[in-house]
Amino acid sequence: MPLKKYIRDIQDFPKPGIGFKDITPLLSNPIARQETLDLLLSTVKDKKIDKVIGVESRGFFFGILLAEALNAGFIPVRKPKKLPFETISATYDLEYGTDTLEIHIDAIEKGDRVLIHDDVLATGGTAKAVCELVERLGGEIVQCNFLMELSFLNGREKLGDNEIFAAMTY
Amino acid sequence: MPLKKYIRDIQDFPKPGIGFKDITPLLSNPIARQETLDLLLSTVKDKKIDKVIGVESRGFFFGILLAEALNAGFIPVRKPKKLPFETISATYDLEYGTDTLEIHIDAIEKGDRVLIHDDVLATGGTAKAVCELVERLGGEIVQCNFLMELSFLNGREKLGDNEIFAAMTY
Repeated sequence: MPLKKYIRDIQDFPKPGIGFKDITPLLSNPIARQETLDLLLSTVKDKKIDKVIGVESRGFFFGILLAEALNAGFIPVRKPKKLPFETISATYDLEYGTDTLEIHIDAIEKGDRVLIHDDVLATGGTAKAVCELVERLGGEIVQCNFLMELSFLNGREKLGDNEIFAAMTY
Repeated sequence: MPLKKYIRDIQDFPKPGIGFKDITPLLSNPIARQETLDLLLSTVKDKKIDKVIGVESRGFFFGILLAEALNAGFIPVRKPKKLPFETISATYDLEYGTDTLEIHIDAIEKGDRVLIHDDVLATGGTAKAVCELVERLGGEIVQCNFLMELSFLNGREKLGDNEIFAAMTY
């Protein structure tokens, strides 16, 4: 099944000049969604995974499906002030300004094997910040896992030696 | 398994005087999460469900797990300006001010049988707005489905004749 058929291109969203990849058609089709999940699982299903991280908020969708399929815990990484318990945070650069992500301090135990999932690997700033949070809590990153990689933005270069997998590449 | 053991009470979040129910311990425990999902499924698994709606953003977690288990489409209902395609919106009253939710205009087809999921049924304003969005797109609401019902807030009264189910009641 050509999965890219279920990704809708939206021009000038969220602002002029940006082309946005809308995943809602994929979420809405159970067959395409299942095939995408199988693909995301294909390189990790035989590995021990204790926790799957989903990054706010489009990383929540396949993040929790991966956690369920792997019988692992699901951990949300969120924007500031969304997580109610004690957190640690990482700040990273955007084209203009900075952004911050938080994780609960009890989300990961030392030695936990962690799968990080987000919808898109673009410049890699978000994923790098999440890797830092996992490492600061003592987790071991098994893979950084994405629905889509925008390969022309070279986000991989920011992620060092971490294993990277994307179900679709643009 | 006493599922409430996995709901953490956080005082004064997001603001002073509010007691917040933190579901992250439940998400993080695969056994408790599976039991919660089974409970949420128990009253709908023999019904035909075409689409499951998850309400931003804590409704996304079990919303998409329900969609996967029911082999149904998953539809996110989101805060304003988050959905990239054409939307319709519903505005509802909060204690102070109003809030708005949006759904893509192509998310539901006329006659679709829809399960609405959110984490908490409190005063019912959010759920009522989502019901309105579904009805405006021609969908048929099978059930409004929640992780938790704060029964002392009487949210049920706002939801008319719709079937309501909550996995936990406070």
